Amino acid sequence: MGASEFKTPRGTRDFLPEQMIVRNQVIKTISNIYETYGFSPLETPAFEYYDVLAQKAGQDTLEQIYDFKDKSDRRLALRFDLTVPLARLMGSNPTITLPFKRYCISRVWRYERQQKGRYREFWQADVDIIGSDKIAADAEVVAIAHDCLKALGFDSFQIRLNNRKLLEAFITSIGISEGLVGEAFRAMDKLDKIGDDGVKQELGERGISGFTADKILEFLEISGDPESVLSQVSQLLDSELATEALDELKELVNKINILGITENIVVDLSLVRGLSYYTGSVFEAVIPEGGVGSVAGGGRYDELIGLYSGKNIPAVGIALGLERIITVMEERNMVAKKKTVTQALVVPVFRELADETLRVAQVLRKAGVKTEVDFRGRKLRKNFDYADRLGIPFVIVVGPDELEQNKVSLRNMDSGEQLLVNIDLVGNVVKEKCTTQ
Amino acid sequence: MGASEFKTPRGTRDFLPEQMIVRNQVIKTISNIYETYGFSPLETPAFEYYDVLAQKAGQDTLEQIYDFKDKSDRRLALRFDLTVPLARLMGSNPTITLPFKRYCISRVWRYERQQKGRYREFWQADVDIIGSDKIAADAEVVAIAHDCLKALGFDSFQIRLNNRKLLEAFITSIGISEGLVGEAFRAMDKLDKIGDDGVKQELGERGISGFTADKILEFLEISGDPESVLSQVSQLLDSELATEALDELKELVNKINILGITENIVVDLSLVRGLSYYTGSVFEAVIPEGGVGSVAGGGRYDELIGLYSGKNIPAVGIALGLERIITVMEERNMVAKKKTVTQALVVPVFRELADETLRVAQVLRKAGVKTEVDFRGRKLRKNFDYADRLGIPFVIVVGPDELEQNKVSLRNMDSGEQLLVNIDLVGNVVKEKCTTQ
Repeated sequence: MGASEFKTPRGTRDFLPEQMIVRNQVIKTISNIYETYGFSPLETPAFEYYDVLAQKAGQDTLEQIYDFKDKSDRRLALRFDLTVPLARLMGSNPTITLPFKRYCISRVWRYERQQKGRYREFWQADVDIIGSDKIAADAEVVAIAHDCLKALGFDSFQIRLNNRKLLEAFITSIGISEGLVGEAFRAMDKLDKIGDDGVKQELGERGISGFTADKILEFLEISGDPESVLSQVSQLLDSELATEALDELKELVNKINILGITENIVVDLSLVRGLSYYTGSVFEAVIPEGGVGSVAGGGRYDELIGLYSGKNIPAVGIALGLERIITVMEERNMVAKKKTVTQALVVPVFRELADETLRVAQVLRKAGVKTEVDFRGRKLRKNFDYADRLGIPFVIVVGPDELEQNKVSLRNMDSGEQLLVNIDLVGNVVKEKCTTQ
Repeated sequence: MGASEFKTPRGTRDFLPEQMIVRNQVIKTISNIYETYGFSPLETPAFEYYDVLAQKAGQDTLEQIYDFKDKSDRRLALRFDLTVPLARLMGSNPTITLPFKRYCISRVWRYERQQKGRYREFWQADVDIIGSDKIAADAEVVAIAHDCLKALGFDSFQIRLNNRKLLEAFITSIGISEGLVGEAFRAMDKLDKIGDDGVKQELGERGISGFTADKILEFLEISGDPESVLSQVSQLLDSELATEALDELKELVNKINILGITENIVVDLSLVRGLSYYTGSVFEAVIPEGGVGSVAGGGRYDELIGLYSGKNIPAVGIALGLERIITVMEERNMVAKKKTVTQALVVPVFRELADETLRVAQVLRKAGVKTEVDFRGRKLRKNFDYADRLGIPFVIVVGPDELEQNKVSLRNMDSGEQLLVNIDLVGNVVKEKCTTQ
């Protein structure tokens, strides 16, 4: 195996400091908001028993699972999402206090076909409320996604709402046979990508045409502010299920408003959300011209946990797609790229003063300044080059004359400004400059 | 598969909020110190090509690897440490600027025999300096381990230092045949656990007895402050390698002192550190009566990276054992156990005021208070029980009379103190109480 072959497995990536500093910043912003809404951190193993994951994975997902056997021939598999392990955990911990509000920002694995922006190892940022059937809980997770996107610096985005029961009621009302419901959903789900004509064609190919297809397009064409969409739909549908779904959607919009969010919210009748376990509200967030699809998605899944815990426990959650969000933030220069966390490099004028740089570095660190010393025994010039290349904002030079006065020379690499600072004060001086910059 | 079978795979664990809050706190303390020393975050995939890991894994480690094939029949394996992936990364990124100072706090997997305190999925907290052969770099990673243990609240612990070259020089000097060097090391490494007599017996069983065994015991008995140990050893050994090793050890102690650490440092001639890739300094940290072995360990490995990058790059690092550290902290009640991050629960006197609780909750969240609302439609009494059970410190009750005055009732669950607070101020009031408590 030659040196050139030492790379990461297909579909996986290294995150160098330049990327990790951004990721950590994004994760911190998101987890702060999750905690502000009273969600506590939870973590589960990277792998589960294969049967646990297979319990609820659809055929598509099963084909994407990395499965393997341990040395005792137990069949294991890397988790493909964070929700199924959460459901399993509820089964393993039947006495957990409800409601259980947890978040998890962690990695999952799917053996996806290779394509741009798709990875086989990627991070999700999930927040879920277990044990509440209240629509206020649905509204809260939507509000959280909204707050996260705002806090990350996105100004214009759309949060789309729908309800699985409404789709069911509609599909039933136009007499689509049960075998074609899934096909109809899949075609409707594509409205965003392929438009009216595209959906009509897709429907035709799947054996849905004429009056039925027209009805579907008519349904999908209903748009406008949530209130007007809901009122138009209510004139179209007249079943107990439709009434229930419309009441839920109305209440969802209302609670989201009460939480202070009145903009960027739409009811989107074409929103299906692929996962088979949703039972009520579904939602997603989209960044216009983001080019990455939805950046957050979720919904209510009142029947998933029962599969593992033996009794039905209602639940609702949303997941932010960390990879997609970071991709857009990087493309739009919404994040400052930094090659290092280091704020100050301490270097000696000549090698004999190396020990003094260690002492000065400790003064800086005690003040909370992220500090490096020269570890290569380089000449002054080379050390300045290194600070330049890494974007280290301050270089502190330890020289014999300055030392005699208990001082060091502090250079601002951005402005070129250079000043003599007392060693006892240099920590606080640099700390202050780093904070105000 | 019955509900009772839904558990985590053997040797893996769920981390409920009670555990995760502590883990996150410990990780934050450690990563803050790592960054203060100018180390930047780095992450690599959970799995690597099997051949990458097998390149440097000993037979023992190979047997502990979780390996599997992907759908294209590529042989992959979960990483068993964070150092080998780092070495591979240096090979994949030959133009990376040196010195490269990175940290990584992340999980690794080993198929260990099941025993108390041993897990098959566990976290390591590594810090490494790539591209410096200076002993000051060795001293820095030792200082970091010291600072981390202090910051986590450990007062008495020991940092043990040794040098692989010194062991080599000694073993050569007493004429042990090459085939027995490993055996001798393994016996010496056990001094701490089995004492002088135990080591003697172990040596005997491995074919080392008489004069040679006595020499080893004599060597191991040398103890005291670093200076005295080094001076005794220098009288015992007289080879170029021994002189080099002693100079390095002296310089290491000296640099550690310059970094401000003068206590808890010992030279321990029995310290071997199992890993085959160490080439110079080795170190470990031990908590007296911790009952968990060493809580940090590391050393210099100047030849590992060359295996992947094609050219030798000197390196030194240390890893904190997160699981062991947390085990001791929990046993000694060094961490406050919290079941939730939530600081305030907002509840209505009766259900009709549920919307008002949402509004009040948003006021609290805007002030940075971690806030939940009632999502179960519970009676007041039940909500207080919930706050009690989870240890939520404040409950805010929204009632009709108070609302008329734009006020809510704030109850301190610890003291029982209850007061009326203006809604516009409640966020800041609770925030302040949470900060000062």
